[in-house]
Amino acid sequence: MELHRIGESLDRVRQYNPLIHNITNVVVTNFTANGLLALGASPVMAYAKQEVADMAKIAGALVLNMGTLNELEVEAMLIAGKSANEHGVPIIFDPVGAGATPYRTETARKLVNELAISIIRGNAAEIANTIGEEWQIKGVDAGAGEKDVISLAIAAAKHLQTIVAITGKTDVISNGEKTYLIHNGHPILTKVTGTGCLLTSVMGAFAAVEKDTLAAGVHALVCYGVAAELAAHKAGQEGPGSFQIAFLNTLATMTSDDVHRMGKVERRK
Amino acid sequence: MELHRIGESLDRVRQYNPLIHNITNVVVTNFTANGLLALGASPVMAYAKQEVADMAKIAGALVLNMGTLNELEVEAMLIAGKSANEHGVPIIFDPVGAGATPYRTETARKLVNELAISIIRGNAAEIANTIGEEWQIKGVDAGAGEKDVISLAIAAAKHLQTIVAITGKTDVISNGEKTYLIHNGHPILTKVTGTGCLLTSVMGAFAAVEKDTLAAGVHALVCYGVAAELAAHKAGQEGPGSFQIAFLNTLATMTSDDVHRMGKVERRK
Amino acid sequence: MELHRIGESLDRVRQYNPLIHNITNVVVTNFTANGLLALGASPVMAYAKQEVADMAKIAGALVLNMGTLNELEVEAMLIAGKSANEHGVPIIFDPVGAGATPYRTETARKLVNELAISIIRGNAAEIANTIGEEWQIKGVDAGAGEKDVISLAIAAAKHLQTIVAITGKTDVISNGEKTYLIHNGHPILTKVTGTGCLLTSVMGAFAAVEKDTLAAGVHALVCYGVAAELAAHKAGQEGPGSFQIAFLNTLATMTSDDVHRMGKVERRK
Repeated sequence: MELHRIGESLDRVRQYNPLIHNITNVVVTNFTANGLLALGASPVMAYAKQEVADMAKIAGALVLNMGTLNELEVEAMLIAGKSANEHGVPIIFDPVGAGATPYRTETARKLVNELAISIIRGNAAEIANTIGEEWQIKGVDAGAGEKDVISLAIAAAKHLQTIVAITGKTDVISNGEKTYLIHNGHPILTKVTGTGCLLTSVMGAFAAVEKDTLAAGVHALVCYGVAAELAAHKAGQEGPGSFQIAFLNTLATMTSDDVHRMGKVERRK
Repeated sequence: MELHRIGESLDRVRQYNPLIHNITNVVVTNFTANGLLALGASPVMAYAKQEVADMAKIAGALVLNMGTLNELEVEAMLIAGKSANEHGVPIIFDPVGAGATPYRTETARKLVNELAISIIRGNAAEIANTIGEEWQIKGVDAGAGEKDVISLAIAAAKHLQTIVAITGKTDVISNGEKTYLIHNGHPILTKVTGTGCLLTSVMGAFAAVEKDTLAAGVHALVCYGVAAELAAHKAGQEGPGSFQIAFLNTLATMTSDDVHRMGKVERRK
Repeated sequence: MELHRIGESLDRVRQYNPLIHNITNVVVTNFTANGLLALGASPVMAYAKQEVADMAKIAGALVLNMGTLNELEVEAMLIAGKSANEHGVPIIFDPVGAGATPYRTETARKLVNELAISIIRGNAAEIANTIGEEWQIKGVDAGAGEKDVISLAIAAAKHLQTIVAITGKTDVISNGEKTYLIHNGHPILTKVTGTGCLLTSVMGAFAAVEKDTLAAGVHALVCYGVAAELAAHKAGQEGPGSFQIAFLNTLATMTSDDVHRMGKVERRK
């Protein structure tokens, strides 16, 4: 993965301001919208079954996040997802908390079964539970256990026939054949709610401007991780409140040069 | 419009802390509540059909915002709106995304048809779609095209028999007979989600303390624009995260002197 | 109340990262999650009737907040609450706006009647209305009137057979027999939305790591008040936006030494 391509994708997000349709959870809507705006994308949140098909079809990407799912929202996700599939709009899916309750696990499996998803992003426990493996989970912030996250990403990508991104200390993304590790990011991301959810939406912004979806996923992970490092350097020691603000600033002000200088991508055979 | 009257309105908001009942979208609830609190108003969000009539009638203004509308919320808006109308409580309406989907357009038209609205505020595309004109729109952040925004504001005010505010680079507000242009504000407002929605709620705060509703709208637009300029001067170059915080600070700390010194209102014949 | 015990509770929250299940209002979800994360707890928001029983039973505490209640949410609160009661998970209840509308008052009473609640926290008007006393209220931010808040806390604790915390200039907490006053906190807390709601959730975090629930409540009130003082000292003069960020920072960075040095608890006979 050449780093200059990542910077070019970032520039394209800012040039084209892709419309990203989010059906996401109530905890992170504001942070998601502000993060996408800062990056240069155009966020829209729309949930009503009467309009989600219309909104999804004009979007550059559809992001589905089940963080505070309910029946109506799952129904809307399916309608929006089918519209996206019909119109060639990539779907990015975040199975928040899969494994924490049976309802979440079942819903995650239902969505991956009924929709053609371009990228699924979660932590190791969420991905494992989505494909039916047991994995320890505590709430929605479960860290990876001892299992091999790389193997899990590859197995899940093959099982689901999609691109799978598992984020944590090292981010792993695989389409089942090609696998990349991204060594960017910062631990303070775990102290701000919705940083995983926003990352999923940022993947949507990159998928909207880059047809090679695996590349789009890598680009999003690198840019996001670099932004976190820059923001943590500036404000992280003050605490998570200051980090959150610095992170939004950095999404707006970071340059393709920053990506080129700081990006750390490793192709794994 | 004499600028000292605007400063006096600002002082009255802080003196009377009017209760502003918001039925608004899930993206901006926190920012709206914090913005109203900072300014000196008392925000309340209430959505259940069992209570919205009771809440609206004790409020100083009712703000309806359809940013993430659904059937239950539209039903609640109609119940709250009728209660507000019966009790002489001004309604401020924000037709977020009218034109983006048929459902939004229809809902905007339904609300303006069934309720007596004091001020409707949106961008040019939203206002045009609410009155039935075609206008290019992308998501909910559509900028104005080449058409004459002033003419649109006047036409919409006459058509809807209400006060119409169209915000953008220059803000225009008209009751169909008198029209004002406000030359305050800052482009970075477009990089923070919900700044338009909060402005609509701030119009509610001014309408609660100023019986001349057109004047209340002008006062709100000027104060909001001046606050944005002050905040952008302080923090805008750091990025949208810092601007958002500085803007909340400024809503609390700006003075009637700031308004007098920086307000730019033009009466348009 | 020995102050070193309070600092020890704070350290235990950070050591055990208790899972706090919140069914709370849409205005404060993000701030609540970020505040709990900053403090060291693990927040989860889950609302669907299909999963709340499962989530509540694995949580360290269940926090119910009716700030933007609706039928489905009240149903979910009852299901979650019964599960919490069955599994010995403490319930902390915030009757936001009880007294503002009949629906809120009735719902508050229904919840305290049908669930065994460990702590109920509100302002004086909310507590009074929950037990059936008349009390002036304006929206959800009502300050205490002239009545004796201490007497009200004791009476409500006896009436409801639970621990009652009434927060305001001085915080009062009582189980009906023992009563404590906490003289920490800062007025700027009232200029940031959701600071009361977050406090209720923070009480959940302390109740999850301290079996003496009255002590847990006192510990939470002291830590929260000390954090507010530290944050106001650092950023309060800049305005409520900066205070909010400094407050989140302080929840993460404050130490048991800060509590020991600044905590002001008074046992009231």
